[in-house]
Amino acid sequence: MKRVLMLGLILGAFASRGVFAYDWQALPDKAPEPADNPTTAEKVELGRMLYFDPRFSATGTVSCNTCHNLMLGGEDNRNFSMGVHGQMGGRSAPTVWNAAFASTQFWDGRAATLEEQAKGPVVNPVEMGMSEVETAMERVRAIPGYRPYFERAFAGDNPMTVDNAARAVAAFERTMITPNSPYDRFVKGDSSALDEQQQRGMKTFAETGCTSCHSGAAFSGPAMAAGKGFFMKFPTFQDNAYVSKYDLLKDQGRFDVTSEEADKHLFKVPTLRNIALTAPYFHNGSVATLDEAVRVMAKTQLNQDLSDQQVADLAAFLNALTGEFPEQTLPRLPATPGWAFAYDKK
Amino acid sequence: MKRVLMLGLILGAFASRGVFAYDWQALPDKAPEPADNPTTAEKVELGRMLYFDPRFSATGTVSCNTCHNLMLGGEDNRNFSMGVHGQMGGRSAPTVWNAAFASTQFWDGRAATLEEQAKGPVVNPVEMGMSEVETAMERVRAIPGYRPYFERAFAGDNPMTVDNAARAVAAFERTMITPNSPYDRFVKGDSSALDEQQQRGMKTFAETGCTSCHSGAAFSGPAMAAGKGFFMKFPTFQDNAYVSKYDLLKDQGRFDVTSEEADKHLFKVPTLRNIALTAPYFHNGSVATLDEAVRVMAKTQLNQDLSDQQVADLAAFLNALTGEFPEQTLPRLPATPGWAFAYDKK
Repeated sequence: MKRVLMLGLILGAFASRGVFAYDWQALPDKAPEPADNPTTAEKVELGRMLYFDPRFSATGTVSCNTCHNLMLGGEDNRNFSMGVHGQMGGRSAPTVWNAAFASTQFWDGRAATLEEQAKGPVVNPVEMGMSEVETAMERVRAIPGYRPYFERAFAGDNPMTVDNAARAVAAFERTMITPNSPYDRFVKGDSSALDEQQQRGMKTFAETGCTSCHSGAAFSGPAMAAGKGFFMKFPTFQDNAYVSKYDLLKDQGRFDVTSEEADKHLFKVPTLRNIALTAPYFHNGSVATLDEAVRVMAKTQLNQDLSDQQVADLAAFLNALTGEFPEQTLPRLPATPGWAFAYDKK
Repeated sequence: MKRVLMLGLILGAFASRGVFAYDWQALPDKAPEPADNPTTAEKVELGRMLYFDPRFSATGTVSCNTCHNLMLGGEDNRNFSMGVHGQMGGRSAPTVWNAAFASTQFWDGRAATLEEQAKGPVVNPVEMGMSEVETAMERVRAIPGYRPYFERAFAGDNPMTVDNAARAVAAFERTMITPNSPYDRFVKGDSSALDEQQQRGMKTFAETGCTSCHSGAAFSGPAMAAGKGFFMKFPTFQDNAYVSKYDLLKDQGRFDVTSEEADKHLFKVPTLRNIALTAPYFHNGSVATLDEAVRVMAKTQLNQDLSDQQVADLAAFLNALTGEFPEQTLPRLPATPGWAFAYDKK
């Protein structure tokens, strides 16, 4: 009886507002900034250069953009990214677009901030492969043309530090946001921005319970203090064929960081923004299509079997989360000095 | 006696025009276009996308821009480029900037045109590593978002062909020119564009005989019909220490293409435009600095031992060949469809 009443209220709200009653949030035009690293044009300019520069990877071939490709959905459309020497890691690169809205970084939340995250891949042996982040920074310092950019962006006599480089990259990443998706325009009042199927999918998204994790403006959970993180156990329901089919219990997730039993298979709830562009899906990139990803999520997280219609509607809605990508000017990188870096060979 | 007279004439010309008498040419604002592939905005747009897209390399990680980096001097500042699986070739990547002014492509001139060149690295096992260029094209065709770009750029019912992709990339590359270097401004009449040392270097450049090969607007030889090519034997003078020090006889150059004895150690005369940005130098990237490259060239090609002053002056002049780089908008690449490409792993 209560259920029927609720449904009536919900449908009423849906009918009157043209949208399923839920706290739907549009993506803000600006990302939150930490007090100790306010975004400035000078930092963004330097951060863009560092983001695209492959020279401080071991082989000189891998930049941030290699795996978090801003020409695509902010990642590389691979199950596992390929770093130096053709090596591959064990997790799928998360998108950099709108990463600024997450309260923790990496699938296992091992970095509290974008600043902290930026240093990680530099020394990951299967990513950029440098022995020490300080060694990478020595490469940057050895490029004379970088100095004025650091001096303009940061105060102090010796601005060419690892921390400042990370701050610049983080500041740049905070500009990597994708507002004005059809969903955003719909939520702001343009009722024609979503077609009927997408609106059905939006309703199904809330009704099915997707919103219990994928909430907030970035569909990655509630806003939280930096480093707190919004994690969920994946898979929560393990008694289904998907778990073995997609090898979902292999990766222990956050447990690898904390060694706490309660953190086994906990993963950061990823953003769904631009999800249509970021196949294959999940931390292990095991699922190739959005339809299948929707089915797997519903079953493993909510123990629900969706109809084909529900799946199609949800996928249509998720397609409406593709935003507008800010036009990027390709940076000019300062010249390598007249001697070659000693890049790693084989 | 004749020599003294000549020198007098030369110095006179230098004094009166403020420049050493020689047919100094500024870089044209536009590159020549072949009749069968006129440059259009639509081709350039598509070509830019393909140029930056790593998805049709075997591993999905190597694009044209990986080795011919437009953020740098149009190459990768390596002795040998690193392609798929961390493999390395045996020649240093030539710059793509102003390649449109060359009448032949590759160090050994094995491609007559930019269109022909564009297909080569795709199937080079140590570059992009695809088995067939047609297989690479199947990857492009499998990305639905590419179709409208091909349709806008090319006529016909089936525009998504290898030849059209190569035409688009070539059209894009014809826009990759760097006018208005200090040298160009000097030649056009701005006598303050080169400082005294650079002007001395310019004079030395012609007097020493560098211009006998590095002539023309791109300093890569005279304009010629496509495919003819302007080759020189390197090293011409082999009785000096540089030949073994830099292993200059290992690579047989154009001989590998033609198997003709006369082509042994013949290489295309490379452009000197932006040479200050493209260390390390020569086909084998064996020389790290511009100063040393100048010394080696003078000795191996002209059998001359330069003074330190001459070397410094020449290097200063060569630094004046760095032009203005057209601002590039980072392309948005159409999405990978909802299934992953079968990228090569190890």
